[in-house]
Amino acid sequence: MSVAQLLAALASPDPTPGGGTAAAIAGAMGGSLLVMVTGLAKSNTNADGEKAALAEARARIEPIIGRLMQLADADTEAFNAVMAAYRLPKATDDEKAARTRAIQQALRGATDVPLETLRACESAIGDGRVVATHGNRSAASDVGVAIGLLKAAGDGAAANVCINLDGLKDQDYKTAVGRELGELSAKVAAHCAEAMRALA
Amino acid sequence: MSVAQLLAALASPDPTPGGGTAAAIAGAMGGSLLVMVTGLAKSNTNADGEKAALAEARARIEPIIGRLMQLADADTEAFNAVMAAYRLPKATDDEKAARTRAIQQALRGATDVPLETLRACESAIGDGRVVATHGNRSAASDVGVAIGLLKAAGDGAAANVCINLDGLKDQDYKTAVGRELGELSAKVAAHCAEAMRALA
Repeated sequence: MSVAQLLAALASPDPTPGGGTAAAIAGAMGGSLLVMVTGLAKSNTNADGEKAALAEARARIEPIIGRLMQLADADTEAFNAVMAAYRLPKATDDEKAARTRAIQQALRGATDVPLETLRACESAIGDGRVVATHGNRSAASDVGVAIGLLKAAGDGAAANVCINLDGLKDQDYKTAVGRELGELSAKVAAHCAEAMRALA
Repeated sequence: MSVAQLLAALASPDPTPGGGTAAAIAGAMGGSLLVMVTGLAKSNTNADGEKAALAEARARIEPIIGRLMQLADADTEAFNAVMAAYRLPKATDDEKAARTRAIQQALRGATDVPLETLRACESAIGDGRVVATHGNRSAASDVGVAIGLLKAAGDGAAANVCINLDGLKDQDYKTAVGRELGELSAKVAAHCAEAMRALA
C-alpha cells in the first residue's frame, strides 16, 4: 500500500483502518529511525562497547518494525471482527447467546492486538534509550522524533486496550491486562524520560 | 512510495529521509484520522451547528494533509541542500565565503521547512479540539491517536527548527523564529489539553 493510499484509507469514513493501525505504523516509523541511527558510521564516542550496544539494540528493533506492520493489519481485522459480531442476529435466545459469545471473543482479539502493539513500542522505546545514549549526536533529533512517535503509538495502543477491555466480562483477563497495562505504561514513561535526558 | 519503502528508507543509514520527514508523515496520518471522524454519519449530539463545525474543521484539515506530505519531501530536500553546502570547496577565501553563504542559505531552508510543519500541525491540532468536542464519541480513541501523532509531529518539527536555527547568523530571523516557535508550542500544548479534556 502506498503512503497516499494509507492516508486516504485513514481519512475515509469507514471505521477501519483507524487509530490502532495508524499508531502501529507510526511506531514502525519510529523504530525505523532508530535503526537508521544504529547504522551510522560513527557512534557517540566510537568506543567498541558502544558500537556493540548499538548493534544489539538494532537486532532487537528490526523484527519489531515488521511486527508493528503485522499489528497494523491485525488491528483492522480485529476491529472488523468486533463490528461483524455486533451485526449477528439476536432474534432468539440462542442467537443472543451466540452473539454475546462472538462479541466477547472479538473484543478479546481487539484488546490483545493493541496490547501487543504497546509491548512492541515499550521494547523499542527501551532500545531508543540505548540509541539516545550511544548514537551519533548529529542524529539526536532523529532519535527524538523516533521516541516521540513510539510514545504516541504506545499511548494510542494503550487507549485502545482500555476501550475494548471495558466491554469484556472475563474478570481474570481484565485484571491481568489492567496490571500489565500499568506496568508497560510506567516503563514507557521511564524509558522516555531517560532517553530525553540522554539527548539533552 | 509504499509504506514498506518508506520504512526501509527511514531505516537506511542515509541521513535522508530522517526525522523531519517521518514527523510530517505522522502528522498527515493524524490529520487523516481527524478527517475520518468528521465524515462519520453521526456527530456527538447530531445538532446542526455541530455538524457545521465538523464540516468547517474538515475543510481546514484536508489541505493540511497534502501540505504535510509536500513538507515531508521538502524536509529531505532541505537537509540534502545543507549537506551539499557543507561539501563545497573551501581552499580559497572566495570559496570559503561562498561556502558560508551557501550553508547559511541552506540552513535557513532547513529551518523554514520544519517551522511550516509545526504551523500545519498546530492548525490541525486546533481543529482536533473541534473534532474531539463535536465528533462521534465512538471514535474518541481515533481522535486521541490523531492528536498524539500531530503532537509528536509538531514536537519533532520544533526540535528540528531549534537545531537548524542554532547554526544561523541572521539575528533578526533567529529572534522572529524563536518567538513564533514559542507561540506555536504554547498553542499546541493548549489545544492538546483542551482536546484531551473533551475526550475524557
